[in-house]
Amino acid sequence: MIARDACAVRDATDRLASLRALFALERVDGQGVIYLDGNSLGVLPAATPARIAAVAEVEWGEGLIRSWNEAGLPRAKSAESRGWITLSQRIGDKIARLIGAGPGEVMVGDSTSANLFKVLSAAIAISGKAGRIVSERTNFPTDLYIADTLARDKGYELTLVEQPAIASHLDDRAAILMLTHVNYRTGFMHDMAALTQRAHEAGALVIWDLAHSVGAMPVDVYGRRGGTFLSTEARGAEVEVPPASADFAVGCGYKYLNGGPGAPAFAWVHPKHTAWMDRTGWRQPLSGWLGHAAPFAFSSDYQPAAGIARFVCGTPPVLSLAALECGVDTVLAAEDAGGLEAIRDKSLALTDLFIRLVEERCAAHDLTLISPPNAAERGSQVSFAHPTHGYEIMQALIARGVIGDFRAPDILRFGFTPLYTRFVDVWDAVDRLRGVLDSGEWREPRFAIRAAVT
Amino acid sequence: MIARDACAVRDATDRLASLRALFALERVDGQGVIYLDGNSLGVLPAATPARIAAVAEVEWGEGLIRSWNEAGLPRAKSAESRGWITLSQRIGDKIARLIGAGPGEVMVGDSTSANLFKVLSAAIAISGKAGRIVSERTNFPTDLYIADTLARDKGYELTLVEQPAIASHLDDRAAILMLTHVNYRTGFMHDMAALTQRAHEAGALVIWDLAHSVGAMPVDVYGRRGGTFLSTEARGAEVEVPPASADFAVGCGYKYLNGGPGAPAFAWVHPKHTAWMDRTGWRQPLSGWLGHAAPFAFSSDYQPAAGIARFVCGTPPVLSLAALECGVDTVLAAEDAGGLEAIRDKSLALTDLFIRLVEERCAAHDLTLISPPNAAERGSQVSFAHPTHGYEIMQALIARGVIGDFRAPDILRFGFTPLYTRFVDVWDAVDRLRGVLDSGEWREPRFAIRAAVT
Repeated sequence: MIARDACAVRDATDRLASLRALFALERVDGQGVIYLDGNSLGVLPAATPARIAAVAEVEWGEGLIRSWNEAGLPRAKSAESRGWITLSQRIGDKIARLIGAGPGEVMVGDSTSANLFKVLSAAIAISGKAGRIVSERTNFPTDLYIADTLARDKGYELTLVEQPAIASHLDDRAAILMLTHVNYRTGFMHDMAALTQRAHEAGALVIWDLAHSVGAMPVDVYGRRGGTFLSTEARGAEVEVPPASADFAVGCGYKYLNGGPGAPAFAWVHPKHTAWMDRTGWRQPLSGWLGHAAPFAFSSDYQPAAGIARFVCGTPPVLSLAALECGVDTVLAAEDAGGLEAIRDKSLALTDLFIRLVEERCAAHDLTLISPPNAAERGSQVSFAHPTHGYEIMQALIARGVIGDFRAPDILRFGFTPLYTRFVDVWDAVDRLRGVLDSGEWREPRFAIRAAVT
Repeated sequence: MIARDACAVRDATDRLASLRALFALERVDGQGVIYLDGNSLGVLPAATPARIAAVAEVEWGEGLIRSWNEAGLPRAKSAESRGWITLSQRIGDKIARLIGAGPGEVMVGDSTSANLFKVLSAAIAISGKAGRIVSERTNFPTDLYIADTLARDKGYELTLVEQPAIASHLDDRAAILMLTHVNYRTGFMHDMAALTQRAHEAGALVIWDLAHSVGAMPVDVYGRRGGTFLSTEARGAEVEVPPASADFAVGCGYKYLNGGPGAPAFAWVHPKHTAWMDRTGWRQPLSGWLGHAAPFAFSSDYQPAAGIARFVCGTPPVLSLAALECGVDTVLAAEDAGGLEAIRDKSLALTDLFIRLVEERCAAHDLTLISPPNAAERGSQVSFAHPTHGYEIMQALIARGVIGDFRAPDILRFGFTPLYTRFVDVWDAVDRLRGVLDSGEWREPRFAIRAAVT
């Protein structure tokens, strides 16, 4: 049996423990809430309120239009005070550090959906063969919706397969492989480098949605670390493959990046592709004015900016961008504290502990682990299925102050953010889950009421 | 000669004067700044800082993911406290009141550029004839860029003409007329109803970009007021035409709506077209998850939501949305104070005064009015051209605390926001402009330095 005290000891020796102070958790803790939904919406960083107040009151309120050039005029004239016009690129360079990309390779703005539309349009233009867009049947719906509409428009076929069958669909009919690195339902983590390599061998381009991985682990779009491919024929038998660089990536600002509700998203494009765009003049379809080579020339002819900047569309929402930067900075602080590997190590320790505790303490109840038991295949979340009453159990658990979420038809999801989730939080969460299950309180009618957002 | 005292009298009797208190102008006034750039970025409403602080600290910080259903949990439980999920639609209904549309007809989110992409895609799908997209050569660049790229993709021809030639290009080759209601360079205001009517007679659909008009005057997408058509053959001879309803409109949140830098934009679609979409299942290309009929069912098949909701794409930036709502509320307060007609009346009085004062007091200098002298053709801005040194003059004027802006090659723009611009501000601005011109101080080398954003 794992004791709570043992968890407290782990917190005391956790080298990332000090990072929790970067978040405004006093009132969350004060409510007795244990928040295990950072995979859906990260918590408020402590620095964010003052930052957005400064953007609103000083930069916008006093600086007015001048803040596009130099934010904070006339009060803030330090060298660090640069204009809003530089904000997206600055945040992009910060996110680049989290995904293994280089400076100037990441654009920030719009939604994940819109950015996926852009990079998938690029992949279609580059692929040169109308064929299949291969994806996972349980990929996040917005990815599938965007791809389905674009595939119909461009004469491609969206082919959805179960996870184990992905590799076997990377044949000469595959034009593009589009996957979310960590599955939002199960937390299953694909082997990015291995699948990228396999897709490239089949002549397909690869798009990764990093929504559920960036900020929770090191991401490696260049495949510099190499990858291990779990063959479908002999699952579990690891086959070494060479390193492989992805072609495109997109990601979300409001999950493990803690950027706030609806925070702007990002996109990365391999420089070999932006170089091709620069040579050919290819334009992404959302060719708005801020992606122009000289936006403030206000010329009537569109000339795309060089490199990743062409993926910018309209004017970005500055208040939300400022909050996103505060969120990204929390992850960069962790990088400074122990590296993204330390985040990954703690993430796996937290999810391992949660699985062990549930299996140990809730064994009498009908919960089935649907996340990978193998840590190497797991993101920073754990999902259990309940055959009949997952929704009600989750609502009752939330009423006891443990916030996870439910995904139809039967999934209870629990997200673990290594920057602020403690080992004792895991213990307490399972303790309350056990209480909900043992008491049967989830059978109360109030827990069956469906909210607009589940 | 118009005396400053006479302007002060007009302020004292202005029935919209009290609305100025809705804005955080103390520190702008304290700097001695006269802000005539609300056509580019509206000023900070007084209510915005507290609202975004509450969204960040209470709704996000304490309510966490629960705020999607009920924002402000656990502190704010009033009936008015509804979830973030309702925010876009609530703001859309407010904006609808400003453009003559009905509730449930306006979506809010994304950028003007992205929304134009969506509605132009819809117009192309509905038009049923590959032909010309007719627009104005000096339309705002992002509109032209989006249209150019989409036209190439869909086999349409983007035909750009000068303003007086627009009507004569509405012939059987015209599939779509796409215009900005008020031209961003000159402030020329098209006759929406008349041009819409003319386009419909030619079998073309009509898209209006309301970026430079919404919030500064009544806008009437249904053409209920009818319109007067200024024929190109006999310009000035007004020909009555019947009312005409537009097909699509988009608009910007950060100009006269005061929603803050990069505020989310909006789109309106005539219900006859959304009804067609509902019947046919047509999907807009940015078919993201929040535009799904049942987004929280997380089904892998895309089923567009009914009506305007299908034009939603990804998760909207909530902090920026909250600020937008505060901005829209300032215009609605004006509607309550005297109606949008009162805004229009004051807007024309301000621009008339500015023109008269510049012509009276700066006659010795080489400024040419390029905005329409006829008030009926003018938006809420006034532009003057200077043959050689418009940029330097504007920089020198900004140094004297009058903030307008410059648009290449030769345009000095001055925007007037009836909600907060006073008649004495107009007098003082022209006084300082005269000072800049009479002294020749704009010849100082520092005023020739080009900023990133001009």
